[in-house]
Parts: sequence; C-alpha cells; structure tokens
Amino acid sequence: MEPLKVGLLGCGVVGTEVARLFTEQSEELARRAGVPLRLAGVAVRRLGRARGVDLDPELFTTDAAALVEKCDLVVEVIGGIEPARTLILQAMASGASVVTANKALLAEDGETLLSAADRHGVDLYYEAAVAAAIPILRPLKESLVGDTVHRVLGIVNGTTNYVLDRMHTTGTGFAEAVAQAQSLGYAEADPTADVEGFDAAAKAAILASLAFHTRVTAADVHREGITGVTAADIASAERLHAVVKLLAICDRTVGPDGEPGVSVRVHPAMIPQDHPLAGVRDAYNAVFVQTQAAGELMFYGKGAGGAPTASAVLGDVVTVARNRAAGRRGPAESTHSGLRPRPMGEVITRYHINLDVLDRPGVLATVAGAFAENGVSIETVRQHQHQHQGREADEGAPAQRASLVVVTHAATDAALSATVEALAHLDPVQAVESVMRVEGDT
Amino acid sequence: MEPLKVGLLGCGVVGTEVARLFTEQSEELARRAGVPLRLAGVAVRRLGRARGVDLDPELFTTDAAALVEKCDLVVEVIGGIEPARTLILQAMASGASVVTANKALLAEDGETLLSAADRHGVDLYYEAAVAAAIPILRPLKESLVGDTVHRVLGIVNGTTNYVLDRMHTTGTGFAEAVAQAQSLGYAEADPTADVEGFDAAAKAAILASLAFHTRVTAADVHREGITGVTAADIASAERLHAVVKLLAICDRTVGPDGEPGVSVRVHPAMIPQDHPLAGVRDAYNAVFVQTQAAGELMFYGKGAGGAPTASAVLGDVVTVARNRAAGRRGPAESTHSGLRPRPMGEVITRYHINLDVLDRPGVLATVAGAFAENGVSIETVRQHQHQHQGREADEGAPAQRASLVVVTHAATDAALSATVEALAHLDPVQAVESVMRVEGDT
Repeated sequence: MEPLKVGLLGCGVVGTEVARLFTEQSEELARRAGVPLRLAGVAVRRLGRARGVDLDPELFTTDAAALVEKCDLVVEVIGGIEPARTLILQAMASGASVVTANKALLAEDGETLLSAADRHGVDLYYEAAVAAAIPILRPLKESLVGDTVHRVLGIVNGTTNYVLDRMHTTGTGFAEAVAQAQSLGYAEADPTADVEGFDAAAKAAILASLAFHTRVTAADVHREGITGVTAADIASAERLHAVVKLLAICDRTVGPDGEPGVSVRVHPAMIPQDHPLAGVRDAYNAVFVQTQAAGELMFYGKGAGGAPTASAVLGDVVTVARNRAAGRRGPAESTHSGLRPRPMGEVITRYHINLDVLDRPGVLATVAGAFAENGVSIETVRQHQHQHQGREADEGAPAQRASLVVVTHAATDAALSATVEALAHLDPVQAVESVMRVEGDT
Repeated sequence: MEPLKVGLLGCGVVGTEVARLFTEQSEELARRAGVPLRLAGVAVRRLGRARGVDLDPELFTTDAAALVEKCDLVVEVIGGIEPARTLILQAMASGASVVTANKALLAEDGETLLSAADRHGVDLYYEAAVAAAIPILRPLKESLVGDTVHRVLGIVNGTTNYVLDRMHTTGTGFAEAVAQAQSLGYAEADPTADVEGFDAAAKAAILASLAFHTRVTAADVHREGITGVTAADIASAERLHAVVKLLAICDRTVGPDGEPGVSVRVHPAMIPQDHPLAGVRDAYNAVFVQTQAAGELMFYGKGAGGAPTASAVLGDVVTVARNRAAGRRGPAESTHSGLRPRPMGEVITRYHINLDVLDRPGVLATVAGAFAENGVSIETVRQHQHQHQGREADEGAPAQRASLVVVTHAATDAALSATVEALAHLDPVQAVESVMRVEGDT
C-alpha cells in the first residue's frame, strides 16, 4: 500500500515531540492505522536551528505552502491565527486531512475550517486543542452523543491551576506564584494568555460547541482572569472549606424569555474542597461533565506539554489514517441545535463578597438592605472586628473596623453585580475587598 | 431518508432505560445521527409484565430471532452467554450492526463476535460493557491509539467499591457491608459475580485487549475477590495511609525469557490515600491509565445503573447510525500486537503481610530469614505486642504474642507467595493473619 504522506507544520516543543514519537514508532503506528505513514516534511521558520529530534535535514523546509500541497495529512502545530489558517485551508483544498492543536484558531474561526473540511471531503481532528492528552473532545462528540449534557466544568489551563495551587499551599501572593511558575517553565515570560483567561476561554468555546451541538466562538465567552485573586481571597476560600480555581463553565440554559441557549464563561471561582475538581493539583487539568443519563463524569490528566500534546495529535493522526485507508471520513460536527450564547447577566451563580466596613451598630442592617433591594438572598454572613487604620484616622483615633464576609444564595449575575455596585456606595462600607463567584454545588 | 430500524433485545433495568430515553429523544437523536431512528421491537422473555416505559404493546415480542432479522441495528442488553451470542451472530449475518453491554460474552468469546462483524461488514460497539457511562473504550481504542499504554488500573465494579468504602468509613465487617449494599440495591441477592471478582475480570480482559492491541479473555485473568478482606485488613491499610480497593490491573510486561507480554489480574490491593483512585467513593468507578506520552490519565463516573448504562448504549447507537448513514463502518479492533498473557507468578508486586507471632527473642530474625531465603526484600516491619489467648494457653499462663506487619519491596508474585508459604511453617508464627498486595506507587 502507498504510504500516507504526513506533513508537519511547526517544530517547537509540540512539533519536536510529534516528530520524535512519529519516527520512533512509525511501524507500530502503521500497524494500528492499517496503512504505512511517511513523514514528508517539516515546515519551520528558520532552517539550521538545533532541534530535539534526529531527522534527515532534507525534511526541513521553510516553504510550508509547498509542503502542504504534496501531503495526504497535515499536522498543524504552529499555533495562532495566521499563517496557520491559510495553510490549513490550502491543505484541505488540495485534498489533505488536517490534525491541529490550534485552540485559538478553532475558537475564533472554527466554522471556516469545519465547512472547508466538509466541502473538500477531508477530516479535521483537534483533540489536542483542549486539555492536551486528556481525551475529552472525542468522548463529548461520540461517546456522549446519545445523552444530554447539562454542564461542563473544566480546569483547562495548567499554568493558572499551578499558580492558584501554589497560592493555596504556600500562602504566597499572585505575583510570586507566577514567578515560581515561570521559573519552572509552567508559565511563559509573558503570561497574559494564561492568567487573563484567553487560553481557557478558547477551550471553553470548543467544549461548549461540542457539548451542546452548536457553534460558540471565543468572542461569546465571558472571560475574567486570575490577576485579581489575592492571598486574602485564598484564605477566605479556605475558611469556607473551598479552593479557588480558574474554571471554564459551559451551561445549557433557558433565558428569561423562555428561549433555550447556552452560557459560556471563564473566571476564578470558589469550589468546595470535596468537589472532584478541588483535588486537581499542580499543572494538571480536569473536565467535569454533568449529563442527564450518565450523571457526573470526570476526565483528568496532563493538559499541556510536548509529550501529552503529541499523544493527542498522534491519536488523531492514526484515526485520520485509518479513515483514509478505509475510504471514509470521521463523523462531522453537529451544530444543528443552534443554541445561542446568553449574556453573562442572566447566568445564575452565587457570590462570595468580602467588605471592609465601619464597626458600628446598624451596619449589618444597612448591608443586608442592599442585598434585599436587589432581590439577592444571603446564605451566610461572618463578621469579625479588626483594628485597622481607617481613612478617617487623621481626624483622631482610628475608627473601629470590621470585615463582613457574605455568601449569597443563587441569583442572576446581573442582580449580584448590581448588589456589589450598591454596596460600594453605602456609607459604612469602606471598601469591597473582594468578590468571587462560588460554584460546584450539586 | 428511510428510518433505521432498531431492535432491542432485553427490557430489564438497562433495556427499560434505553427504550425510555430512545423514544423520548428520538428526534434529537435522529438529528445527531443524520438519519431517523425507529424502534422496531423489543424482545422480552414474557409478555404482559409491567415495564417502566410507555411503549406501544405491539412492539413487545417473545420472538427475538424474528426481530433481529428485520432490524438494521440490534441493541443487546440481555446479558450472559446464551441466547445473547446466537442472537448477535444472527443479527450480523442478516446485515445488522450490533450495540451490546454484554461484558461476560465479550470477555469469553469476543473473537467470535468481532470476526463475525468483520465478515459481514457491520459494526460492533460495546462502550457500555466496561464502566457503563464512563467513556473508556473509545478513548483507549481511538484517542490513545497514537500512544503506548503501559498500565491500566481500574475500579470497575461499583458493588465491591461500595462494600470496601463502607468497611473503611464505618469499620464494619465484610458480611455486614454486603448486607447494606444489598438493602440499597447496590448488590444482587447473590453477590457472587461482584464480590468474587468475575464481573471485574471480564472488564479487565476487555480493557487489556484494547489497551495493548491484543486478545485477552476472561480465562487469562488472574482473579481474587474481596470475600477474604477483613476489618483488620482495612484497619492495617489505614495505618499505612492506604485504602483497600478491588483493582483490575492490566500491565504491558516482559517475561523472564525476554518475551514481551501482558499481565491481567483482579484482586484487592492497598493503594496510597493520595493516589487518584483512592478518592473514588461509594459505587463510583474510575479507570487510571499510564501511557508513554500522555502520562497519567483518569476517567471517573458512574459505572453501573440503568441510566448511565443507557447513556453509553445510546452513544453507540448514534455512532452506528451515523456510520450507516455515511455508508461506512467504525474502526475495527486491532489485535496485531499478539501480546500473550503472562502467568501471575511473574507479576512484580509488593505484599503487606500481617503475622501473629510468639513474642520472644529472635522471632524477627527468623521471619526476616524466610524473606531473605526467597529473595524478597523488606521495606518496613512494624511489631506490636498484644495479650492474646494463645493455643498453648491450656498448659498454663497465656503465651505473650505479637503482631508483625511486614511490607515488602517489589518482587515477583511467585517469590512473595513462596515467602508466605514458608512463613506459615515457621515455628514462632502462629498464624498468617492477612496478606494483601500493595499497588499504585508511581
């Protein structure tokens, strides 16, 4: 049988590992695929750089466009929007199937890629785009296709999970924890994509699209990062027997107009210590799925890194090769539900609010009134006095101050944020020290 | 498009739930499958029984053989070897694809079913056969097909996990915990298949076959149940910061002759409290997978029950329907590795041994000598005296007795069991109170 010509676009951390495992195991992979696989070339930006893989130097090329034209299967691990998109579309137009790990591109413009795959009758697989080696896309798309997914709750960014875990275990602040993550290679020199939640938001869009059989893009995802999470927030969470995690949350929902839809968001939240996601430590990822018939499922593993990402890429390579050997395509995406993203204000959630207040009679009544006016019901209040240099201190003795920690019952995010806004303007409230959502109740 | 005719064989707990979800969601399932689905009939043993699903009574039949002849897709949830096997083979011979949850049949005679599916060009899917709703077979067969699986470690029987979890949380004995499980519907009136490990062994054979691209049958699986696990074993485990779990363990291995192979076994074992599987409580299931590139993965969820099993069955039904609508079959099993099961004696493991010994000088030296003679190295020994009515008591004062708890380093199971045999014959050893393997170190 004619070998399948595989072109690799990109030879960074992931590409190097893909090339290494591919060449080391080519015979075994061929047996599994039912067709021989041959590496036809590796497109790189610059030739002559040392790579962590021992390949024939002839395989390297800077002409990615020429490479994709001669391949049956193109593996794209360049990342980013361009030139990745143009190369993928060109590959498909010339009849090649594509395996990619490019979450940013899929979340921004998946529709273009998927419709091109349909038009040209080729496969597009991207298991590595979400949570790397953890098989989560195929289970959502295939194993759970007979069930109704209610919610997907994921820790899908290892960097932020490492940072928050460090803050819990060592009591350190955000900046110091990020510096530790950088020194260990868990965070980039510019950690923005991770700590501001962009990476997680792209993955959330992909998860929601598959879970709910619709189309969600990165722009539809409400996104808040972890840069505002303080050591005090972490300590507050621990007093509540909770941990702070950056969560990607995808919900099947019904709007106030009775219209079914989805809500997709990424933000830090407190979850109970006995929630299965609370035990996900270090840079690990996990995705928790709640469905009608299956109940609660969790998928856990390494969500980043060269080898784990290469595992997912090569699983897709063998799958595509099997499909081509059998003259078929894998199942197409189903986006028939057409469920539309709903605004963040409609989302039902709970808030943990930490207020710095003047310690005088009637403060709790005033604060409780602000909640009531916004239709938000309080679950618990904890108050503790502390001696604190108040703003009025220059007028004489420091004012006696107290911390008021409020956890609400469930309400709409709009009502909760209106409450916080109102609290900030109350006379006895000196500062809204922190606000964090509480999730993960069952 | 002509609807796909689906025949359901069996209408017990699982069949009822399959029928209910199938009929309630038939339009949605059709949209996902890309083809309408129609329930063509339900084969039952006796007509006229009340069922938990509202179906046209005309659909029920006692003539399963006639039903399978007229279907495009047959769902087998009768269980057991016959008549399930004959009906499945008959369905395939008449061109129908098959979805089954029948682990016993697959583990005993999967080869017959798989080769019949190949011969007739139809699909055979069985995600529900292992750990019900937890997607584990598709991930092993497809997502991880580009990786090398080293080990699969599973809690794949909910009944025994519930029983052992109760023993840990309440300190109760085995019999009482089984009675509790029975009263809650977690254990059958005759719990043999669960507590003796037969159910887990069938699932282990299926997992090992897929993980290692070979053929393993139930007869190849070394099997020990949990009937011998005592409250004292549980207490010993807790002193070691471990928990006792019934594990299905599938290893890629190399025999002493240098021949690569697999070892597949089911037995109770102590695992460290901080192992991800240790937190799997109640009747939940989880499968922990160690691979070369992906590292450690875990899949967690409900491993039994009508709805979770129906979720997996319907996922397969939609997958098969999609395949038929597209005129293709799903990927066939790959058994090309031909790795053979190795005998239990070769397995490398560790033992926890609890001895009742006479408390006199030199006992530890004698005991340690027995380990050394068998080439087994000791990791820890803990000794504590206790006043105990000895066998020699009728001759006068009770002999002073002690407990000696030994945890070994890794050795072959043959060497370890020879050691236990030798210990039993040592003069100062009054009884070998318990022996349990220790697993889950990383």
